[in-house]
Amino acid sequence: MDILNLLNSHKSIRAYADKDISEDLLDELINASCRASNTGNMQLYSIIATRDKQLKEKLAPYHFNQKMVTEAPVVLTFCADLNRFEKWCDQRNAQHGYDNFQSFYWATIDAILAAQNFCIAAESRGLGICFLGTTTYLTKEIIEVLNIPKHVVPVTTVTVGYPKDDNAPLSDRLPVEGVLHKETYHDYTAADIERIYAPKEALPENQNFVKINNKENLAQIFTDIRYKKEDNELFSERLLNTLKEQGIF
Amino acid sequence: MDILNLLNSHKSIRAYADKDISEDLLDELINASCRASNTGNMQLYSIIATRDKQLKEKLAPYHFNQKMVTEAPVVLTFCADLNRFEKWCDQRNAQHGYDNFQSFYWATIDAILAAQNFCIAAESRGLGICFLGTTTYLTKEIIEVLNIPKHVVPVTTVTVGYPKDDNAPLSDRLPVEGVLHKETYHDYTAADIERIYAPKEALPENQNFVKINNKENLAQIFTDIRYKKEDNELFSERLLNTLKEQGIF
Repeated sequence: MDILNLLNSHKSIRAYADKDISEDLLDELINASCRASNTGNMQLYSIIATRDKQLKEKLAPYHFNQKMVTEAPVVLTFCADLNRFEKWCDQRNAQHGYDNFQSFYWATIDAILAAQNFCIAAESRGLGICFLGTTTYLTKEIIEVLNIPKHVVPVTTVTVGYPKDDNAPLSDRLPVEGVLHKETYHDYTAADIERIYAPKEALPENQNFVKINNKENLAQIFTDIRYKKEDNELFSERLLNTLKEQGIF
Repeated sequence: MDILNLLNSHKSIRAYADKDISEDLLDELINASCRASNTGNMQLYSIIATRDKQLKEKLAPYHFNQKMVTEAPVVLTFCADLNRFEKWCDQRNAQHGYDNFQSFYWATIDAILAAQNFCIAAESRGLGICFLGTTTYLTKEIIEVLNIPKHVVPVTTVTVGYPKDDNAPLSDRLPVEGVLHKETYHDYTAADIERIYAPKEALPENQNFVKINNKENLAQIFTDIRYKKEDNELFSERLLNTLKEQGIF
């Protein structure tokens, strides 16, 4: 399959067949994951692959009981990891200084690049994946379940398995002109915003979603239901506190 | 080409042929970039494609004059962008609350996922890419050159072009066991660290690097030369200040 076709046909897969992923295949995919670019070749990430049923059940509530966590054969928690590199430095009489936001930010980038490589590799082998953004909400609880030490922070979770069905349509995206700026950033005029968001707002499923939720428009679905200001602020504070507890600040 | 082979043969390309990238090809690659997973399908990122020679020359010092910035036909600055989504909400009477760390973190993840999709798409079409981690160092200066508004923060830069030569060897990676944890995180013993880092330390180019820099070992190359504690702390403070100035906190 052409690689652009693979990228362009990506869908999040939330229902998995009752079929395991072999250790060999998982190793092959993790190996490809690690070929992603990373900061200074320090590889400031770790990947936790959870298959155990009881552990997945313990994780599930901290991902708001999304069924993929218990139903997928493998749950991968991608972590920003400064700990391993620091331990190496400690054993080499090298005075490191990675307990700061900049280093954590590199580690976040490294973890996400590795995660996306994993997902593309997995999809190329017929697997389906779903990213769980919930990882940065109840991060402290996930840290406890997965026995994650200081200077390591889970940043995203990917569930992976063979798709039960993949009949779902592609999700929509903004037109390229909506995200691409030529030469410098060109801030959006009111007319730009109207044009860029019109196709998304016109989709029957989105119009139906607005109707059944009794909202005025699609934007309110995001601000009043899915990503409310008070939740965002609460989870911000929690995440910053967890970063402090993990020794990042 | 098999997709795993493509991922496994990734190299950062730092020398580019004098050959432009067509607008059509760039649009095709950005389109594939946007198919990446993202938070709640909000697509909280923007991509700035800079081709103009003078602009690239203005950017170059803020990437520590790495030659890829001026020599690559296209410099892509991937930004965490809450601004576009907020403007849409404003035009829809939707009370948003995205000026916080959690939302910025989602936007960072979205931008990096899109960046990695772009890179894989580009490599599948014979282009070469290089990530510039410098984006999070002199972020404020990059913001000024690229005219980036509040609630938008550049998070990584990718230079892209046709490779001048690609004879460089693959860079090394830790063995899979070095980054993969089964079921839960298993913290590294001293013996683990020795085993995991041994192949990297044994590489002739790394041993030579240690020798010419007059250091005891490879870890000190990182801590004493490449990523010094005082620099990391300085750039952390700068990045946090820039986030404040951009209205994130």
